[in-house]
Amino acid sequence: MPHRLRHLLGIEPLSAAQIADLLEQAKPFQEIQRHPLKKLATLRGKSVALAFFEPSTRTRISFATAATRLGADTMQLQAEASSLQKGESLLDTVWTLDAMKPDCIVMRHRSSGAPHFVAQHLEIPVINAGDGMHEHPTQALLDALTIRDRKGTLEGLRVAIIGDILHSRVARSNIHLLAKFGCRFTLVGPAMWVPRELEDLAPHVRRVARIEEALEGTDVVLVLRVQLERLHEPALPLDEYIHLYQLTPERLHRAKPDVIVLHPGPMNRGVEIDPVVADGPHSCILEQVTNGVAVRMNLLYVLIGGPPLGMEETHAAD
Amino acid sequence: MPHRLRHLLGIEPLSAAQIADLLEQAKPFQEIQRHPLKKLATLRGKSVALAFFEPSTRTRISFATAATRLGADTMQLQAEASSLQKGESLLDTVWTLDAMKPDCIVMRHRSSGAPHFVAQHLEIPVINAGDGMHEHPTQALLDALTIRDRKGTLEGLRVAIIGDILHSRVARSNIHLLAKFGCRFTLVGPAMWVPRELEDLAPHVRRVARIEEALEGTDVVLVLRVQLERLHEPALPLDEYIHLYQLTPERLHRAKPDVIVLHPGPMNRGVEIDPVVADGPHSCILEQVTNGVAVRMNLLYVLIGGPPLGMEETHAAD
Amino acid sequence: MPHRLRHLLGIEPLSAAQIADLLEQAKPFQEIQRHPLKKLATLRGKSVALAFFEPSTRTRISFATAATRLGADTMQLQAEASSLQKGESLLDTVWTLDAMKPDCIVMRHRSSGAPHFVAQHLEIPVINAGDGMHEHPTQALLDALTIRDRKGTLEGLRVAIIGDILHSRVARSNIHLLAKFGCRFTLVGPAMWVPRELEDLAPHVRRVARIEEALEGTDVVLVLRVQLERLHEPALPLDEYIHLYQLTPERLHRAKPDVIVLHPGPMNRGVEIDPVVADGPHSCILEQVTNGVAVRMNLLYVLIGGPPLGMEETHAAD
Repeated sequence: MPHRLRHLLGIEPLSAAQIADLLEQAKPFQEIQRHPLKKLATLRGKSVALAFFEPSTRTRISFATAATRLGADTMQLQAEASSLQKGESLLDTVWTLDAMKPDCIVMRHRSSGAPHFVAQHLEIPVINAGDGMHEHPTQALLDALTIRDRKGTLEGLRVAIIGDILHSRVARSNIHLLAKFGCRFTLVGPAMWVPRELEDLAPHVRRVARIEEALEGTDVVLVLRVQLERLHEPALPLDEYIHLYQLTPERLHRAKPDVIVLHPGPMNRGVEIDPVVADGPHSCILEQVTNGVAVRMNLLYVLIGGPPLGMEETHAAD
Repeated sequence: MPHRLRHLLGIEPLSAAQIADLLEQAKPFQEIQRHPLKKLATLRGKSVALAFFEPSTRTRISFATAATRLGADTMQLQAEASSLQKGESLLDTVWTLDAMKPDCIVMRHRSSGAPHFVAQHLEIPVINAGDGMHEHPTQALLDALTIRDRKGTLEGLRVAIIGDILHSRVARSNIHLLAKFGCRFTLVGPAMWVPRELEDLAPHVRRVARIEEALEGTDVVLVLRVQLERLHEPALPLDEYIHLYQLTPERLHRAKPDVIVLHPGPMNRGVEIDPVVADGPHSCILEQVTNGVAVRMNLLYVLIGGPPLGMEETHAAD
Repeated sequence: MPHRLRHLLGIEPLSAAQIADLLEQAKPFQEIQRHPLKKLATLRGKSVALAFFEPSTRTRISFATAATRLGADTMQLQAEASSLQKGESLLDTVWTLDAMKPDCIVMRHRSSGAPHFVAQHLEIPVINAGDGMHEHPTQALLDALTIRDRKGTLEGLRVAIIGDILHSRVARSNIHLLAKFGCRFTLVGPAMWVPRELEDLAPHVRRVARIEEALEGTDVVLVLRVQLERLHEPALPLDEYIHLYQLTPERLHRAKPDVIVLHPGPMNRGVEIDPVVADGPHSCILEQVTNGVAVRMNLLYVLIGGPPLGMEETHAAD
């Protein structure tokens, strides 16, 4: 490939072809999640550092599981216990980890751009597992994989995004990704969370005032988590949020009959999403989680660059 | 077997035969704890999710060690770092874990019944690692294994239980288990912690007023941990607790000469137990810990259902 | 060997020959850190308990990485989550861990002497990963390995140590180690942190008043971390500390041209060390970290006593 991927820092700089490759290559790893034995020996002897400077459960466990299923070991650093509390700089912490010779660093940090900064100072691949309000590229990839599986294509879909889009790195990475395949977006949410600038993220991004309008004829709905602590800045009563923006079965009728619903989790059931929708036939929320492991396995595989994948041979149990 | 075990949620619903089987099957796993190399390949390629929604050291490490010694990988979720803090429901957290495709979930939760609730919503086996004031079935199994090893049988033993029985899931699971083998119980402790209803747990459960009476002619003493923070509800001075209920060598003389002493740990030395007893010849406290790994290895093995156990062949080092 | 190492509790009781052996034996493990595949099967089936009763990031990850690269499993206990909070004694906690049958315990504790105390009560090897203000022997070994690699020898070097020497177990272990090879020391720092008694630690330990004097003609500089919270006991303004004791490029000119600079980390850049020095050609700070994994691999290997090391054969990937 002319443009070999060295890091995964964001979706924005990737080409549609690169993304399509990553999704295509994730297929065999999706298969593995259905095997009774899910462990490969592909990255045996390699190690993956998980540097989470912001609390995370699902993303951290997903990456750890992905590494383990490839046969790699993990080196886990969590912010709460880290030297950062002792005043060490981010770069020194990461250099220290790096000096223990992992083969890749997966990093989450509350500052937008932190993984880019770190990647400039390391030889090994860096994977952004979420940086501030900037990007969460593996979430966008797993969402895209889920959408493609259900829709057969990513091309030209209509996508509604509901909620606090301003602060959402998930929304941002999804818009960057899906825009490369010609998708069109309707954004809806409290005005403070859906500012005009979002329309500049990509072509065909349109803000609308009412959730019904956003859902009209849509193929995909991306429901964002309400961070309840943000409802106070400025004050928005919770019941008003629910009244205006909750994704209910009635509202979902406006969408196409085969619409799919995504949520990055963790969900506030009964706030941004009606439990009937969350557990209903349009929901792909648990598929997203399973696909997360597959996408991350493939990424680790591609970036660390193990030997050519021959799944039958590398199966740990054989 | 007609009644194949799918989950281990509590001791109460098990038959004596099922329990006897679990203890018998644990024997080879006890052997393994004495090997220089303790690791099998039996569950290689399998993964065990450890979902601890309540802090735990010994039980969590014991399960993790059990999984590792079977060759399985672990996915560890601890409450402090979990999405529950972000308002996610228990079921969504567990479903998310499940979507990453572990082969079994081991779960501790402060709410009685939480593992039962979860088990109704999952296809994979659920092991209760302690739920509220309800049950702690693997603790009762490891206690029973320890007793059987020392006494040769569980049948018809006399068992004294001392301390805060009301709040103790350990006491409850032990009474359920040992009652199935015809054991008789004397309970003793502060009145508020030994209410009359406990006598309905099983036949032959008798509350007594004085520790000397509880110990008279007993085969087994189960000393419970005093949760010091509970001494204030209602007020019970610590020195009075010690004066009335501490297991001392003098008091232990009332028991049979070959009496054994169990404690689930962590101990408050000098409170519920005299150090001379804790470290004396009747104490089985460290055997309990070793047996805990063996019992849990067997349970994971039985529930996940690896290939038939041929220890010589699956030994990792061979 | 007449004097087989059973534990590593401190540097003080070791002979120069034992230390030289440990450094020499670490060489192949240094090699491994440069391999694309760093995992051996040497200690497969063994387990290493990491009992950290004091927070630690780098030392804990380094030991975990060392164990993992030897093929061993880890059992991790961290103080924050431990039973110690429930009032259990240190010895009971460690006995409980031991009853789960690890092959070695690595232990960090805030009390000087805690690992010695524990070692007297266990059959398995104990490695001191830092105890109070007493010793941090693996840090001294990795420092010595780094120095020997750069200088070709440890014999007769001149070593300057700067900062809070009184409270530093790193300084103490380094002095014990290097004194056995005839090194001479100059100590400098605020008077409260460099008391006269330090001169009794070894022959040729001399306190000096000014950093320039300490650095004059030195081969090695060991910069200690300033624990900022200690600056208030008694009050020492931070800018005065920086003015008097920061290792700057100008000051470093007093040392030999091939001087090397060590820091145990985490660094306060701009406090005890000028970033130009930290990132400059004399700095060995990241080599120290890499050597830490090698030294710890060798120690685990020596103490647990795996089969004779034949690296080509035990390489996991072969």
